Amino acid sequence: MTTKIIELEKPKLKNPIFIEGLPGVGNVGRIAAGYLVEELGAKKFAELISSHFMPFVLLHQSSAVHMLKNEFYYCKAKGKNQRDLILLIGDSQAADAEGHYEIADEILKYVSKFDVKEMFTLAGLSIGEQTAAPKVVGAVSDQELVKKYSKFGIDFDAGSKVGTIVGASGLLLGLGKYYGIKGISLLGETVGFPIIPDPKSAEGVLKVLTKILNIKLDTSKLDKKVKEMEDFIKKIQDVERRAMMQMAKGPEKPGEEKEKLTYIG
Amino acid sequence: MTTKIIELEKPKLKNPIFIEGLPGVGNVGRIAAGYLVEELGAKKFAELISSHFMPFVLLHQSSAVHMLKNEFYYCKAKGKNQRDLILLIGDSQAADAEGHYEIADEILKYVSKFDVKEMFTLAGLSIGEQTAAPKVVGAVSDQELVKKYSKFGIDFDAGSKVGTIVGASGLLLGLGKYYGIKGISLLGETVGFPIIPDPKSAEGVLKVLTKILNIKLDTSKLDKKVKEMEDFIKKIQDVERRAMMQMAKGPEKPGEEKEKLTYIG
Amino acid sequence: MTTKIIELEKPKLKNPIFIEGLPGVGNVGRIAAGYLVEELGAKKFAELISSHFMPFVLLHQSSAVHMLKNEFYYCKAKGKNQRDLILLIGDSQAADAEGHYEIADEILKYVSKFDVKEMFTLAGLSIGEQTAAPKVVGAVSDQELVKKYSKFGIDFDAGSKVGTIVGASGLLLGLGKYYGIKGISLLGETVGFPIIPDPKSAEGVLKVLTKILNIKLDTSKLDKKVKEMEDFIKKIQDVERRAMMQMAKGPEKPGEEKEKLTYIG
Amino acid sequence: MTTKIIELEKPKLKNPIFIEGLPGVGNVGRIAAGYLVEELGAKKFAELISSHFMPFVLLHQSSAVHMLKNEFYYCKAKGKNQRDLILLIGDSQAADAEGHYEIADEILKYVSKFDVKEMFTLAGLSIGEQTAAPKVVGAVSDQELVKKYSKFGIDFDAGSKVGTIVGASGLLLGLGKYYGIKGISLLGETVGFPIIPDPKSAEGVLKVLTKILNIKLDTSKLDKKVKEMEDFIKKIQDVERRAMMQMAKGPEKPGEEKEKLTYIG
Repeated sequence: MTTKIIELEKPKLKNPIFIEGLPGVGNVGRIAAGYLVEELGAKKFAELISSHFMPFVLLHQSSAVHMLKNEFYYCKAKGKNQRDLILLIGDSQAADAEGHYEIADEILKYVSKFDVKEMFTLAGLSIGEQTAAPKVVGAVSDQELVKKYSKFGIDFDAGSKVGTIVGASGLLLGLGKYYGIKGISLLGETVGFPIIPDPKSAEGVLKVLTKILNIKLDTSKLDKKVKEMEDFIKKIQDVERRAMMQMAKGPEKPGEEKEKLTYIG
Repeated sequence: MTTKIIELEKPKLKNPIFIEGLPGVGNVGRIAAGYLVEELGAKKFAELISSHFMPFVLLHQSSAVHMLKNEFYYCKAKGKNQRDLILLIGDSQAADAEGHYEIADEILKYVSKFDVKEMFTLAGLSIGEQTAAPKVVGAVSDQELVKKYSKFGIDFDAGSKVGTIVGASGLLLGLGKYYGIKGISLLGETVGFPIIPDPKSAEGVLKVLTKILNIKLDTSKLDKKVKEMEDFIKKIQDVERRAMMQMAKGPEKPGEEKEKLTYIG
Repeated sequence: MTTKIIELEKPKLKNPIFIEGLPGVGNVGRIAAGYLVEELGAKKFAELISSHFMPFVLLHQSSAVHMLKNEFYYCKAKGKNQRDLILLIGDSQAADAEGHYEIADEILKYVSKFDVKEMFTLAGLSIGEQTAAPKVVGAVSDQELVKKYSKFGIDFDAGSKVGTIVGASGLLLGLGKYYGIKGISLLGETVGFPIIPDPKSAEGVLKVLTKILNIKLDTSKLDKKVKEMEDFIKKIQDVERRAMMQMAKGPEKPGEEKEKLTYIG
Repeated sequence: MTTKIIELEKPKLKNPIFIEGLPGVGNVGRIAAGYLVEELGAKKFAELISSHFMPFVLLHQSSAVHMLKNEFYYCKAKGKNQRDLILLIGDSQAADAEGHYEIADEILKYVSKFDVKEMFTLAGLSIGEQTAAPKVVGAVSDQELVKKYSKFGIDFDAGSKVGTIVGASGLLLGLGKYYGIKGISLLGETVGFPIIPDPKSAEGVLKVLTKILNIKLDTSKLDKKVKEMEDFIKKIQDVERRAMMQMAKGPEKPGEEKEKLTYIG
């Protein structure tokens, strides 16, 4: 079935900006975009599912199942100098190389229908050590954007620090060119353990982003919100990590069974 | 060729319920659904084959080859308060992540043509130890179903016990939403060795299911039937497990050959 | 590009029988079918190439490259009680599970255009030890064929000896059902080292097959022919085995380079 | 999204020759073709991107992201006895077997639109040891080409030296037959470490190629150019190698994180 986007509502948007924040290192992008969705009261209008996600559903406390998905939200401009927004958050990125390309391409194809011309991708940048003041490093789809965003406190020395941007945040910028969408990746410095969410790094990213977007945002509830999110996000990542380890190790023998996650199938 | 459903007959069904029971932990779902098919005298009307199954055929005692497949059966309502049923049983689930999504999606697309709006997926829930009285744990596609099924002795505490539902039983529930099909997964507690079928757990699942469906079912022959099924099911799973182990280990050297299954190709 | 069949000529065939012999255990099928093609003077009319083959070309002594491919030959009935034949031989089978299904399906789709209703698939059956008189074991797509072929010295006790038939020889039989093609697999017992061709086992298969087909065949040149074929077949299999081992081991470090095959890319 | 070719300009070319030089052993083909593009002032007219490349973008020193891609250039005939040229260079080859076939096939489909009938694929041939005078070994799509190119100092003893040509340089020759394109692979002998570029081997290849094409080329700047290219090429290959090693090892544990490349996602 590859990748499907199911539209729940067709919002009328004017010249919207696209913002992506999916899970990754320190979950920086996911936390930042998720907080923005909540604080702005953004409304979900589409869901993306993909056979490139891991083949399981999660269970909510209520016994309801939860498909792995990415979700599109929109938020109309509220004040002067603001813009309509499309926000993408989600549980998961592709589990394989081909899926990363396909999903990024489907996302761009879809937001292009709303005449998106600009995008922000939010992610973490693993620096291997804790830092008191995590910087926000910028990477752009087009060199001229460095100038445009020069006054927002972004560190534009990514070229010498960073080798690559893996997954959606990078490929959206790279593939965006073929859809006429220019973009910048805001990368919050973080220790670099995928399983430890870094709200502080996310806060740094949010501060830069909201300044650019002319949005006032109270980031004081960020720590609390992250704790709420964390349980569910951790569940997904635990399962994904274990599933990947098991694939790498090969199928287990009966005696090893107890070390596993409770497994249904 | 991906996934194909070959229709043998086009049954006329009224408001049918869809029941899935494919191989998995303890083969709970496979045993329960298989027994139901036999006892109800359900009739096969379609076969599903997929390039996501393992690339071999099995051999029956008669020297006839057997393709890995899933099979759709139907059974018309016989008594009052009963409903027409579509049952899905089979030899195999997908051997790769992408296949799980694709096959679940094809199944839903197909049963949608019969106006299915409700489904039951049957599976085992590995709890790592033997239990005298295995419970039937429920997971639902929609929280409101918990209430609907509250009086059938289902344990609705899955959210705290169970991380995920892997494969068809989970994805059918999750993807069902996009086809307007609501469903519940009935998960029989079992030790959790995929290779040891657990008829007792399957019996628990069947008791709950038949109560909901208003079907009288004599489960006394279950042990005997499982023994009959077992040889063939075991053959498939032996081969699949060995094939997967071999893939994980890489190609063997000539000297190791004798440890292998007899191999033809 | 998946799988392509390139037709070189459109032969007019009457009620042809399809015979497959691709590489596998002991190369029994490949040797038997290849010898038949040569001795009958069969004519090539189509080539099959696939992205499921290994991604390299081989080099002939002449410096000409050789794509991995399967080849379709035909041979018109020459005598009374003979039938037109389509023969499939080749360098390779699919390198992945999905490819096995896809290629078998494309083959069947193609030969169906010539109104094929019957097929023979030729393969080796690894028994783990050398035997003075290798038997020819039969597996059928349909139980009633056991009777039809009962008088040709085929051992129809495959069901208890053999777990599975992996790859083309098995899937062609299994998928053939959906194309209205019935078939039998003739499995020559062999030691079971994929890298050691077994002309004796192939001879046994050929004797049974030619008796069924009413063809007189001098098998005395088989040993000589196998030696001629062997160099090229061995080259392919060496490379495939090394490639598979390397994949299983992961990418090598510079210092290991000398142990490898000469490599171009 | 599989593989896409994005055309930037539609050049009018007369009877063009196609030349491929993508990364590989010693980067011989990549260096030779890249140098030719620069020295001839060839103009880019199309880009190829593929979900079979690794799923990341690279970062330029300027903070601009760089998608992995292959690039088509053209160059009109400048002198007598010269021909219009299409040159293909790029950052990457497919990361999986299926991708190699697909990308080679898309390339051939595309250049066929310009009526290409002849091609040269440039690559390195790993010989496992340094040599003072690396030879240029030839492999051809058609045996009769050996004669055609016999007077240009090409070593046509490839058949006995070389087992296979892996990836684009080989598959383009092999698949070219189905597009009516004949070709020769010029293979520069090199030590065989993929990560050490070999400008000397590339120079040998260029000398043969330019003699055939009637092009005067000053190869004195080759060493300097290689040093310029090298940083960027090395970055890509470092990341690819590490990514492949990580895949082979399976997901790492938190404690191992510091040994990794700086990672963003």
